[in-house]
Amino acid sequence: MKAIGVEPGEGRPRILEVPRPTPGAGEVLVRTHRVGVDGTDHEVIAGNHGSPPPGEEHLILGHEAVGVVEDPNGSGFSRGEFVVPTVRRPPPGGENEYFERGEADMAPPEATLERGIDGAHGFMSEYFTSPAECLLSVPPETAPWGFLVEPISISEKALELAAASRSSFGWDPETALVLGNGSLGLVTVAMLVERFEVYCLGRSDRPDPTIDVLERLGATYVDSRETPVPEVPSAHEPADLVYEATGYAKHAFESIDALAPNGVAALLGVPEPWSFEIDGGRLHKALVMENKAIVGSVNSGPAHFRAAIERLGGFPEWFPEAFVTTVAPFDSFEAAFERTDGTIKTAVAFDEP
Amino acid sequence: MKAIGVEPGEGRPRILEVPRPTPGAGEVLVRTHRVGVDGTDHEVIAGNHGSPPPGEEHLILGHEAVGVVEDPNGSGFSRGEFVVPTVRRPPPGGENEYFERGEADMAPPEATLERGIDGAHGFMSEYFTSPAECLLSVPPETAPWGFLVEPISISEKALELAAASRSSFGWDPETALVLGNGSLGLVTVAMLVERFEVYCLGRSDRPDPTIDVLERLGATYVDSRETPVPEVPSAHEPADLVYEATGYAKHAFESIDALAPNGVAALLGVPEPWSFEIDGGRLHKALVMENKAIVGSVNSGPAHFRAAIERLGGFPEWFPEAFVTTVAPFDSFEAAFERTDGTIKTAVAFDEP
Repeated sequence: MKAIGVEPGEGRPRILEVPRPTPGAGEVLVRTHRVGVDGTDHEVIAGNHGSPPPGEEHLILGHEAVGVVEDPNGSGFSRGEFVVPTVRRPPPGGENEYFERGEADMAPPEATLERGIDGAHGFMSEYFTSPAECLLSVPPETAPWGFLVEPISISEKALELAAASRSSFGWDPETALVLGNGSLGLVTVAMLVERFEVYCLGRSDRPDPTIDVLERLGATYVDSRETPVPEVPSAHEPADLVYEATGYAKHAFESIDALAPNGVAALLGVPEPWSFEIDGGRLHKALVMENKAIVGSVNSGPAHFRAAIERLGGFPEWFPEAFVTTVAPFDSFEAAFERTDGTIKTAVAFDEP
Repeated sequence: MKAIGVEPGEGRPRILEVPRPTPGAGEVLVRTHRVGVDGTDHEVIAGNHGSPPPGEEHLILGHEAVGVVEDPNGSGFSRGEFVVPTVRRPPPGGENEYFERGEADMAPPEATLERGIDGAHGFMSEYFTSPAECLLSVPPETAPWGFLVEPISISEKALELAAASRSSFGWDPETALVLGNGSLGLVTVAMLVERFEVYCLGRSDRPDPTIDVLERLGATYVDSRETPVPEVPSAHEPADLVYEATGYAKHAFESIDALAPNGVAALLGVPEPWSFEIDGGRLHKALVMENKAIVGSVNSGPAHFRAAIERLGGFPEWFPEAFVTTVAPFDSFEAAFERTDGTIKTAVAFDEP
């Protein structure tokens, strides 16, 4: 069967011919429907992050997948059912405490593999297998957008951690600031507008499709070239919640200034080492005197996938249509990896020639 | 009656002659037993923090008090009952949402006064009044050490916030690193040794009474001159919980390196502005990839005082005796403000001549 993969350092994905997998005990065979592309894929392609499985030269890409059960293989799933796979799998040594507790998303990097990213093949192939307990059913209505479940689940987890950090007192947040108008930032805006007055920070010139979408969602665009993060409170209002999806390391620390008292910043970006000066005394004091918090968050667990499936079904109908700007048929998969001005979210459709 | 106060800039406390207060409606008259001294008092005395009530020249010191009800004034308290007062009071405009919710500890600085610190007289006088709802009963057995309830409550709140931040997953912390072997750090070591393997970082030379006490508690002393915070994991072990009570701003950021995956750092120090360089990219990435959290915490609420009263009763009997190195009679109160090598925790006894 055909797959889309990359060799470290090659710099661009290509089609691979690989054997069609056979489901082992407890595994389901899934025919791939669509697989999304995100910033992590681009990091993997650039050779900055992740690795092929040990001993192999290439890595099959893809960690945001939706597919159709081809062979339930004795699991509770039915042939033809739409499913979304989780991403983390136990490392070669077998399960560890995190997997045993059903909290693979809390495993430190060395205690997990990530399909399509680090040490395990992804879902960008005509078929894939997965342990049944790593698959979640999605309704047929939302299945075309099922590849959004994984990125939404990432934010479900981050927002859960953020809310937990404020759960020992009466926290009634009203204002959220999303740092980054990339695809993760934008889908999070769509999640937050239900409850929050949302500001979304970017550095895009109008006209820009992400600005159109976030404004249609009811959020306010903040151009970071005019209003840096620490000035958001005076230019707009302080944020009860900051959600960072830029990977720009200064934002992790500037977010302290953007927060209202008792607020929390959820960090999701993964920057490279970068030294710079901060007024650590002032920021430390602000954290303490105003009971502020910072939570880092990576990956997501089955409960977050379930919440994401629910969330996807509740989005306004126009949103996925406007948000997903490219669904490239397999034969022209390269289009899903292009990042042009009009691009927001892209995916490859494996069952379209 | 006599009180101990300070005028901003005067640099040392002195005895004041002030009118004995009369309890208003809903207020209780309390005869002061003992009042503790901590780092905040020294900051107030130095003129770095806090202020007298508006229009007054002096501030009566003291926010760690235990007293005896002299006039219940119709409250549920009985004459002769030992009580501890909370510290925060509504600002001149009256109660705000934080006080209404019983969460004055979550009020931002401008929305609260602090007795003995900022804008309201403290408890270092022969008598004080307090609204009945700001007093908590303490059993006679622990009353001699009742002035420790307030500092313990500060840590109860910080530990509650820290645990809340990890409450959305299965967190089973084993190791704690307390930064600072001052009185707040040391009393927190006493709180944590019940549950944690505890390391306590300081920069004291042996022999030192704080090292003796923390070792008797079963904790391990870490000399920061030999083992800086980021090296604690390699020299000892990574910490599931870091508790910062140094006010040394670099520690707020170095604590990220000291944490185990999924760990949380509780910050309590209040440093002055201080700019320095950090590897913000590396620290940001570590927060995210290992699901780490940082929570700032200030002050404490009635629930934390109740927990602190319980906690104080559970300490080993030798601990308060060893921890409180000075209880100065009122006539020689200056001894409670001296910071000599043998000093850990000090208090003034108002009912001892």
